[in-house]
Amino acid sequence: MPLEEALQRLLDMADAARITERDVLTLADCDGRVLAQDLVSTLDLPPWPNSAMDGYALRLADWSGEPLAVSQRIFAGQAPAPLAAGTCARIFTGAPVPEGADCVEMQENAVVHLDERVSFSEPLQAQQNIRPQGQETTVGEQVLAAGTRLGPIELGLAASLGRDRLDVVRRVRVAVLSTGDELIEPGLPLGPGQIYNSNRRVLCSWLTRMGCEVIDAGILPDDLKQTRTRLAGLGSVDLILSTGGVSVGEADFLGIALREEGELALWKLAIKPGKPLTFGHFRGVPVIGLPGNPASTLVTFALLARPYLLRRQGVPDVEPLRFDVPAGFVWPKPGNRREYLRGRIEQGQAIIYRNQSSGVLRSAAWAEGFVEVLEGTTLALGDRVSFIPLSEVMN
Amino acid sequence: MPLEEALQRLLDMADAARITERDVLTLADCDGRVLAQDLVSTLDLPPWPNSAMDGYALRLADWSGEPLAVSQRIFAGQAPAPLAAGTCARIFTGAPVPEGADCVEMQENAVVHLDERVSFSEPLQAQQNIRPQGQETTVGEQVLAAGTRLGPIELGLAASLGRDRLDVVRRVRVAVLSTGDELIEPGLPLGPGQIYNSNRRVLCSWLTRMGCEVIDAGILPDDLKQTRTRLAGLGSVDLILSTGGVSVGEADFLGIALREEGELALWKLAIKPGKPLTFGHFRGVPVIGLPGNPASTLVTFALLARPYLLRRQGVPDVEPLRFDVPAGFVWPKPGNRREYLRGRIEQGQAIIYRNQSSGVLRSAAWAEGFVEVLEGTTLALGDRVSFIPLSEVMN
Repeated sequence: MPLEEALQRLLDMADAARITERDVLTLADCDGRVLAQDLVSTLDLPPWPNSAMDGYALRLADWSGEPLAVSQRIFAGQAPAPLAAGTCARIFTGAPVPEGADCVEMQENAVVHLDERVSFSEPLQAQQNIRPQGQETTVGEQVLAAGTRLGPIELGLAASLGRDRLDVVRRVRVAVLSTGDELIEPGLPLGPGQIYNSNRRVLCSWLTRMGCEVIDAGILPDDLKQTRTRLAGLGSVDLILSTGGVSVGEADFLGIALREEGELALWKLAIKPGKPLTFGHFRGVPVIGLPGNPASTLVTFALLARPYLLRRQGVPDVEPLRFDVPAGFVWPKPGNRREYLRGRIEQGQAIIYRNQSSGVLRSAAWAEGFVEVLEGTTLALGDRVSFIPLSEVMN
Repeated sequence: MPLEEALQRLLDMADAARITERDVLTLADCDGRVLAQDLVSTLDLPPWPNSAMDGYALRLADWSGEPLAVSQRIFAGQAPAPLAAGTCARIFTGAPVPEGADCVEMQENAVVHLDERVSFSEPLQAQQNIRPQGQETTVGEQVLAAGTRLGPIELGLAASLGRDRLDVVRRVRVAVLSTGDELIEPGLPLGPGQIYNSNRRVLCSWLTRMGCEVIDAGILPDDLKQTRTRLAGLGSVDLILSTGGVSVGEADFLGIALREEGELALWKLAIKPGKPLTFGHFRGVPVIGLPGNPASTLVTFALLARPYLLRRQGVPDVEPLRFDVPAGFVWPKPGNRREYLRGRIEQGQAIIYRNQSSGVLRSAAWAEGFVEVLEGTTLALGDRVSFIPLSEVMN
C-alpha cells in the first residue's frame, strides 16, 4: 500500500472520529493544544494610532520651518490631550499619537533650541512613524481558525487581543503498549533472551510533547487471555497504540484478540523501514499497531500515527514541512519501497547514517531528519532529495 | 553590531556561567533536558545474535538439499538450547539465534513437508537474516555525549541500554518581565492608552517548552524605585529576561537600575527586526533585554537568547537547521541590516507575509519560519535564500 493511501485512510477515519469535547483553559495551559473555535478579535490592534519612534508628534500643516513649542509629553500608557494648534508633542515609542497630529519625526532628526522649541532637519511626510489603529487586527476579524495548533506565538497573539482563556479540544487519550515476551523494563536486570523496551519510552515522551494524555499500558505478554484482559482494562481511551506483534508470526496474540473482539487490517506499506502497520478496533476503540523495530516505529509514528492524532483533534494541515536538498550520498540501486533514511544536513547537503538497519535507534539520535528516497530511483551526488526535519514532527 | 558577533559574545558569557548542578531524573522527566555526563553503554545491543525474520535457523553446512527436522521452536524472549546437529529451529523475529546456527531463512522461502521436515527453495548465505550481537552498540561505547539535548529518541536510546534514570543539568531559572506603563494583563479591561501584554506569554510558553524553570515576574512599572525593588526581589535566578524598555527613551528605568547596580551594554544589532538588545548584570545576575515589538522579541529570542540559554546548560551546537530555498518573492531594495522575514514554504519556494512591520505578531502565527535576507542584497524570483523553520527554534 502506498504511503499516501495509508495516510488518507487514517485521516478519513480520524475525521469520522473527530473529538468534539472542549476544555476552557488559561493561556499558560494551552501550549500544544488545538483551538476549538475561531479566535475573533474584539478590538482594534493597536487600539489607537501610536508612535513607532521616540521623537515628536506634530500636524504637518503646522511645520513651516519655524521652530514649534512642545505643548505636552506623551509616554506609553498615557492618554494624551488633543494636540494644541501650532505646537508639537514630545512622544515615546508605543505612546498614542494625540488627536490632530499626523506625523511623528524621530528625535535623531530634531533640533531642540535654547528656548526649548524644536525644529526638524529632514523633510517630513504625512503618517510617517505612525502605526495606524487596527494595523494588525480590526474588530470582528478572524485571527486564528478553529483547528489551529497553539504554540507560544499563537498564545501571544491571543494575549495581545486581551484573551486570557481559550476553548481548546480536549486532549487525545492514548494508551501505549508494547508486545513481546522478550521485552523488559529499563532499570531491571536483563535475563537470557531479553531486551530492554525502548519504543514505549519514545512514544510516551513524544505523545506528551504533542499534548496527548498518555496512558502507559506496559508490556503485553505473549498470551491470548492476558492480552484480552489487558485491552479490556484500558478504560476510556481514544486510541490504543501498540508496537510489535503485528507480524504474521504465530505469537501475534494482539492480532488474534482484535480479530475476535473487533476488526483488524494489516497494511503492507510500501515504505522502508516500516512495512507492516495494523489498523483495527478493539470493542470500538481504534487501534494502531506500529512495527516493533525502533526505526520503523519512529518512521510510521511520524508519518502516519502523528497526523492521525492531530486530525482526531481537527487540525486540517497535518503534513510536516519538507525541503528539497542536494544529496551528499549516492544511491546506486533503486528500491521497490520508498525509503526514509536517517540523515543530517552538512554544508547544505543531505548525508545519511552509515547503518540504516531498521533496528538501529542510534541512527535516529544522530539524525536531524528523514531523507526520502522514492521507490525506483537512483541518486548521484547533488541530485535533489526531500528532507523532513525531525523538529517538524517532534511536537 | 553584526549578529554573529552578538551571538559569539553571548555564547562566551554563557560558557563562563555554565550551570554545573545536576538532577538525577527518571527518563519520563528528562525530555528537553541536557545530558550532564556521557551515556556509555554497559551492554552489547542486541545482547546476542537475533533473527530479523520469522523463519528457520540452521547451520549452513547441514543444508545439502535434504529436508531438515525441526528440533526446537524459539520465540522472542526465550533462551534457546544449542542447535542439534543436522536439524533446524523454527524461529521468530527478535528471538536469539541458537548456538551453532549461522543462517536464518525466512518462512516464505521454506517448504514444510508432510513429515514436518523443512527444506528451502532459495540459495542460502551465511549470516543472512541474523542481526549480530553488538550491531547497534558494544559495551563501553559512548552513545550520547554530555551536552546532548534529550528528546524522545535519545530517551528511547537510553532505555534500550537499560537506563531508567539519567544525570541532567538542572533547569535554567529564568525570570521574565515586561516593561512599560502602557501594558496590561490579558483578561482585564483595556484603559485609555493601554495595550495587552503579549511578549511575556510568548516567552513564558517558549521557555517552558525549552525545559526552563520560568518565573513570571510580571510588568515592571515605569518607576525607578519600584524597578529596583522588583529586580532585587527576583531571588536566585540564572537570567533576567526583559522585553521593552531598552530604547534610549527617557522612560528607560530598567536601564538606569542596571547602570546603578550592575552594568549595561546596549548593542545596536545589524538585523531587522530586532535592532536594540541589552546585555547587562543586576547584582551579578545576567540580564538580557529584548526589544519590545513582538516580531523583534521573537527574532532576538530565537537567534540570541535561546542559544545563550542552551549554552548555559552546556549544549555545544546551538544553531538551528537552515535550508537554502528559492525565493518566491522579489526584494528590489538592498537593506543595510540583515532581515528576518516571516515566511512560509509554498510549492518549494519561500514566500513572505505581506506586512513585515515589526509590530505584527500575526505574521509570525502565519509563518512557518524565518527567511533570512542578507544586508546589501537584492533578490529576484528564484534566487536562493536561507530559511530557518520555526520548529527548529520552538523547543
